[in-house]
Amino acid sequence: MILASRPTGIAQAEHFRIEEAPSEHLGEGMLRVRNSHVSVEPAMRGWIADIAGYAQPVPLGAVMRALAVGEVIDSRAPGYAAGDVVIGWLGWQDEAVVSPDAVVRKVLESDLPRSLALGILGINGVTAHLALTRIGQPVAGQTVLVSTAAGSVGSAVGQIAKLLGCRTVGITGGAAKVAQCLDLFGYDAAIDYKAGDVGAAVAAACAVGINVYFDNTAGKISNAVYPNLALRSRVVVCGTASIPAWDPWPSGPRVERHLLVKRARMEGFVIFDHMSEYESSVAQLAEWVRAGKLRYAEDILDGIEACPDALAGLYRGENAGKRIVRLG
Amino acid sequence: MILASRPTGIAQAEHFRIEEAPSEHLGEGMLRVRNSHVSVEPAMRGWIADIAGYAQPVPLGAVMRALAVGEVIDSRAPGYAAGDVVIGWLGWQDEAVVSPDAVVRKVLESDLPRSLALGILGINGVTAHLALTRIGQPVAGQTVLVSTAAGSVGSAVGQIAKLLGCRTVGITGGAAKVAQCLDLFGYDAAIDYKAGDVGAAVAAACAVGINVYFDNTAGKISNAVYPNLALRSRVVVCGTASIPAWDPWPSGPRVERHLLVKRARMEGFVIFDHMSEYESSVAQLAEWVRAGKLRYAEDILDGIEACPDALAGLYRGENAGKRIVRLG
Repeated sequence: MILASRPTGIAQAEHFRIEEAPSEHLGEGMLRVRNSHVSVEPAMRGWIADIAGYAQPVPLGAVMRALAVGEVIDSRAPGYAAGDVVIGWLGWQDEAVVSPDAVVRKVLESDLPRSLALGILGINGVTAHLALTRIGQPVAGQTVLVSTAAGSVGSAVGQIAKLLGCRTVGITGGAAKVAQCLDLFGYDAAIDYKAGDVGAAVAAACAVGINVYFDNTAGKISNAVYPNLALRSRVVVCGTASIPAWDPWPSGPRVERHLLVKRARMEGFVIFDHMSEYESSVAQLAEWVRAGKLRYAEDILDGIEACPDALAGLYRGENAGKRIVRLG
Repeated sequence: MILASRPTGIAQAEHFRIEEAPSEHLGEGMLRVRNSHVSVEPAMRGWIADIAGYAQPVPLGAVMRALAVGEVIDSRAPGYAAGDVVIGWLGWQDEAVVSPDAVVRKVLESDLPRSLALGILGINGVTAHLALTRIGQPVAGQTVLVSTAAGSVGSAVGQIAKLLGCRTVGITGGAAKVAQCLDLFGYDAAIDYKAGDVGAAVAAACAVGINVYFDNTAGKISNAVYPNLALRSRVVVCGTASIPAWDPWPSGPRVERHLLVKRARMEGFVIFDHMSEYESSVAQLAEWVRAGKLRYAEDILDGIEACPDALAGLYRGENAGKRIVRLG
């Protein structure tokens, strides 16, 4: 699945095209991987935008950058053999020929579904775990507020905060996701941002203030949250899903006075800075999953041709869990 | 000098009135202090605004809250005797009867001008020192950008950053202050925000990015600075001098994407949280002043009646140093 043109706002199906290509030559030091599941995630908007973000833009005409999980079917790289299951930067394609640099890790949790390597045991889960603990620094008894609370990162944040002894409040869109937050992910309270005054709902649900705001949205939701920060609170800036485009750059209420009056801290988190802690984080997450303490939702579609609209659909808010496309 | 009415924007002379009152009774546990110098500072706008900030608003009809330095002329409080020089919350008045709680510290640097206790050896200097080192965490060789670079906090920040081995860039208004930044305060570069495109000037002066942005302004200057932050930079939110009022709350370009892409941190600093480090900070600052390594500018007016317009004048940008009113 090729990036055919660069959208200015949300990518749609017409920005991609399918190409069939002969099987690539397997050079020395390379792996051939048959992908079984490819990831679809909000950050892709940034990867295909033509502005320098925290990653170089995907070139036009190239296979769309994506994490995927698959099985090594042929290896000319030391340390890898046919049959190994790997998660890595394998792209939106059925078969990938890559160097080991593209591999994030071998998937060792053969007792758990392989697709989890793209969600709760993958970048989403590790991001939730490390961003919450390293930047958010929650303390037992404190209130942790999560935006996109039912999403693949947010739902893990809420549960991990709860495991750490915090009170958790989620913000999500629609009654079904509110129910999912309360019933599946164990939030102490959940707010439907589509149902009325978010600021009033946040103030009511976080009466003594928000100690950690784990934000995946920016935009209007954050505008409603900032006035409710507690003294010395931490804002984890993990994503900006509610902003469809940064060109032109959007405005919002200034944050400086909130940060000053509350002596609050706001800090960005990008998982690529924390890869040295990835393996230990996955081990912790897998332990929680096996113990039934960390739950997840998946939204699995089928076939490579489903990818572009699956991405556009994320921004329509239609997914009910970590969006994955299953191949072959 | 009494707060007579509450301004919505900048306080002007008409928001204050002078009252003469008989000398107050000196109760048990109290001190009588004859003020010699009272402070005029940007934060006063916050103290008189009718919104909860980091301090309770000054009540209408009360003496205007202010730091002042003076000599104890009578004491019924243990640990204080006539002749002690103190700096504390003594207000815009000639004589104050206060409890020792109002005293920040005794002024021990009898070899240095007493007025310095309101500036470089007072809250301004200590704020500069602690906010820069605790929140900004500059490392030798890094670039530190300071807004209100010639101000009483900013000028100390620039010099301390330089003493710590950093490259310093100041933003200030007008050619005279640019010259003061370069000649008196030793900045490596200084930018006149009134003379053209601040963003382009900042980008040119900080070509490898800004590692620490010490901000006293918010507003348009900060808007121009944020896009030039370096990876893992720190923004010290120390003041919002360029925002005349927070009602209605002003908007500006959203900061979340800058913080995310740069993995940058933004944090508010209020000196009242750091009083346990005050004495050791003053000792360090006094040592630098005596060694001629830390310079300062004072702008001293005379007579209590000068106070209100001295405050309004701060926001007109007319002061050429720490603004102090000398009494009696």
